[in-house]
Amino acid sequence: MISAQAVKELRERTGAGMMDCKNALIEANGDIEKAIDILREKGLAAAAKKAGRTANEGLVEAYIHGGGRIGVLVEVNCETDFVANTEEFRNFVKEVCMQIAAANPKYISREDVPQEVIEKEKEILKAQALNEGKPANVIDRIVEGRLEKFYKENCLLEQEYIRDPEKTVKDLLNEMIAKLGENIVIRRFARFERGEGIEK
Amino acid sequence: MISAQAVKELRERTGAGMMDCKNALIEANGDIEKAIDILREKGLAAAAKKAGRTANEGLVEAYIHGGGRIGVLVEVNCETDFVANTEEFRNFVKEVCMQIAAANPKYISREDVPQEVIEKEKEILKAQALNEGKPANVIDRIVEGRLEKFYKENCLLEQEYIRDPEKTVKDLLNEMIAKLGENIVIRRFARFERGEGIEK
Repeated sequence: MISAQAVKELRERTGAGMMDCKNALIEANGDIEKAIDILREKGLAAAAKKAGRTANEGLVEAYIHGGGRIGVLVEVNCETDFVANTEEFRNFVKEVCMQIAAANPKYISREDVPQEVIEKEKEILKAQALNEGKPANVIDRIVEGRLEKFYKENCLLEQEYIRDPEKTVKDLLNEMIAKLGENIVIRRFARFERGEGIEK
Repeated sequence: MISAQAVKELRERTGAGMMDCKNALIEANGDIEKAIDILREKGLAAAAKKAGRTANEGLVEAYIHGGGRIGVLVEVNCETDFVANTEEFRNFVKEVCMQIAAANPKYISREDVPQEVIEKEKEILKAQALNEGKPANVIDRIVEGRLEKFYKENCLLEQEYIRDPEKTVKDLLNEMIAKLGENIVIRRFARFERGEGIEK
């Protein structure tokens, strides 16, 4: 039997609808953590359905860190100005800014990494593995594994969310999509760090 | 005879040193406006002398316009954090942000315009002039003239300063260099307008 209290807690923690929460709890035999996972999986499904819809509203937001040492500019799109004006959306965009300031991604998703960057990275990783004396038959697997790490460090959506390393930024995004019921796209960002690349 | 009052006014208006102001007034026969021009010319000379010095301090600053419709991120460098922390420098950086938000430059200086963009622009301008029935012997001159206009519209340093169209942004920058006594470089910017380039 699922208690009204558990449904309420799950709703507060996920923002999902009442019946969705109840069904997830039934499926999870009353385990709230497991029910959250189930809802997140459904959130992912909802996100996939919404991914084709045009998101051309949204916000351009900026964040300046350390009194002008690091600056981030980001555009996040949604489908309507109604959602763009919700506090939840605004907070999400701010979180994305802070994530970029703190974790310094180079790309939004792994699809954005240029092929020549991947090739160069692979070369370096291969040379590394060879230098470490790894046997030839496992080199490729090692390179693939380390390339995954490269994506996880450099692609915003694959990064660990700075406030909760259990989640990726993609998880956070999918939660927002499920919660706000619109396609949401982190479209582009710029990150400047004072003096980077200037020869001293 | 140059009055102490005129020197004081000129100092307040230009931020230049006392003897520079006095000499400029003598040269201008006491005409303050003319003396300002003279100081600005000297400011240019001072800026040229300082241009070789490494500017790797400064500020990254952002400006969001229209509640998230337009965003600008800019890095402006100077030589010391002392200057970076002055109110004048901070205000200058803010002005640069607003200029970029309002006047939408594509490049910092004409040297930053890629050669292929210039070539394409020239072709268009030439076709335009031919379509207008301009005689062949003046086409090149017309194209050069209109290309200057293109630079003036698209290059930040050549744009009219939004608060004083008598000045270019480059003039404003040179005034800052003369006033603060350091090399100052508008190094890079990003400008995002919500939804630009998204097909509806």
